[in-house]
Amino acid sequence: MRYLEDFRTGDIHDLGTVTVTAEEIVEFAKRYDPQPFHTDPAAAELSPFGGLVASGWLTASLFMRRYVDTLLAGSACCGSPGIDELRYHRPVRPGDVLRARLTVLGSRPSLSQPDRGIVQPRCELLDADGAPVFSMILHSIFLRRPSATTA
Amino acid sequence: MRYLEDFRTGDIHDLGTVTVTAEEIVEFAKRYDPQPFHTDPAAAELSPFGGLVASGWLTASLFMRRYVDTLLAGSACCGSPGIDELRYHRPVRPGDVLRARLTVLGSRPSLSQPDRGIVQPRCELLDADGAPVFSMILHSIFLRRPSATTA
Repeated sequence: MRYLEDFRTGDIHDLGTVTVTAEEIVEFAKRYDPQPFHTDPAAAELSPFGGLVASGWLTASLFMRRYVDTLLAGSACCGSPGIDELRYHRPVRPGDVLRARLTVLGSRPSLSQPDRGIVQPRCELLDADGAPVFSMILHSIFLRRPSATTA
Repeated sequence: MRYLEDFRTGDIHDLGTVTVTAEEIVEFAKRYDPQPFHTDPAAAELSPFGGLVASGWLTASLFMRRYVDTLLAGSACCGSPGIDELRYHRPVRPGDVLRARLTVLGSRPSLSQPDRGIVQPRCELLDADGAPVFSMILHSIFLRRPSATTA
């Protein structure tokens, strides 16, 4: 079980890679972000993007899945109060293979709820050259390790 | 066609309502955010949330769909460089009926690309009492009205 105390400032976690497909871009966008450059390859070619690009919400969700599979599953995570400085550095396109990386910027116990605290990771998706394609500063709430609160 | 010039500081747009269902919470989370309080009603009851809650990425995506259906469809939108101050004010639960509202905080022509500009809307989902459940400051890029760039 991973608790607040298991996230230390400066820790860097490689969360593995995700491969973006045209099928998933179109399927996600038809439901949540039906703009032509996300849903229609022919219309996308005529758009300012010059081809199909992923909804930013899909890009963020693809990062999230890597975070859950590698760090949040089996953790004492209790959700998030929010996100800051979310940036799309370049469009995400079919065939992109993106590496997810998480860097712990800081963590602190909650002032109002002594059984938990907040971790602030910088979350990134990097392209094959290591350049950031997507980044954000997440605020993730975790319970403190039980021995730490009863000490 | 809606262009950059059609978003004026102070404009408030009612984007209609969205109803949150347990089925959609579970379906979305199984694919993108498989934490037990999003995917498993029984496990969610034992979690700090006391019941099933929506992934924050679903909440944001539900807002996005309202934004596309009411303002972005038939607009000259060219995507987004990012988002600031995204906040989850309280958990979103099955049965919630949330009203989407967009307030234009500002807009400006691009310095580097004279054919477009950036609009900054505050985006919110409000509960039945009008209290914010979700909010963010989005940065949306729109082409300028053709007559404005050739003038």
